[in-house]
Amino acid sequence: MHSDPSRMCELTTEDSLRRLASVPIGRIVFTHEALPAIRPVNHRVVDGDIVFRCHEGAALLTVVEQVVAYEADQIDAGTHTGWSVIVTGKASLVEDPDDISRYEQVVRPWVDLPMARVIRILPEFVTGFELIDGDR
Amino acid sequence: MHSDPSRMCELTTEDSLRRLASVPIGRIVFTHEALPAIRPVNHRVVDGDIVFRCHEGAALLTVVEQVVAYEADQIDAGTHTGWSVIVTGKASLVEDPDDISRYEQVVRPWVDLPMARVIRILPEFVTGFELIDGDR
Repeated sequence: MHSDPSRMCELTTEDSLRRLASVPIGRIVFTHEALPAIRPVNHRVVDGDIVFRCHEGAALLTVVEQVVAYEADQIDAGTHTGWSVIVTGKASLVEDPDDISRYEQVVRPWVDLPMARVIRILPEFVTGFELIDGDR
Repeated sequence: MHSDPSRMCELTTEDSLRRLASVPIGRIVFTHEALPAIRPVNHRVVDGDIVFRCHEGAALLTVVEQVVAYEADQIDAGTHTGWSVIVTGKASLVEDPDDISRYEQVVRPWVDLPMARVIRILPEFVTGFELIDGDR
């Protein structure tokens, strides 16, 4: 019933960012009212930055000018293999109208809320690991 | 190519905990060296508490006696439907040998590291949402 334990191997920065860019969903980790907070969002990696949208009034807007973490993973519960990537960096509100328009073209809302705000994370630390079949 | 935006509906506490217990993987959110941190782990919900294991020396061990967040989700990237549950509560190191033994029986390591430590989160705040097909 249980798979053998997998081996954990570090990913390079380049491979980590490539994997992050290959998936549409991640989770932003921040501090809200002095407590650790997390929200899943749909993102795109654009010119090496992580970009996502949020609605006016979201708790998520408190990430602006904070250092945040962003995580994405793909782990198979059956085989216990897959990967996880964690990026740490400063989040900022995108304010330039041309940038907003360019990002809105590629990051489409998944939820029927008016997603008026665009947030960008500049990756500073990037770590990733892969879980590989222990028998390989 | 893009699905219509989904509707976001709140889940009850009971439904949130049921969904969390139905999946084997989540992500623990904590503060490490003054920065937001996150690690995917495999968990079990035992008597309403979230239980997972970690290895000696893991950054994750700094969660002990911290208030942490724990998140699990299942979101389909194709249909933009699914759910996410976020629990906030205090994490503690399990020290009672009987408890350790009982938890080790049900939380099996997915990684070939000696997972000597068992951590338990007592859920205090529980929130969850579901993404439902906007046409339904």
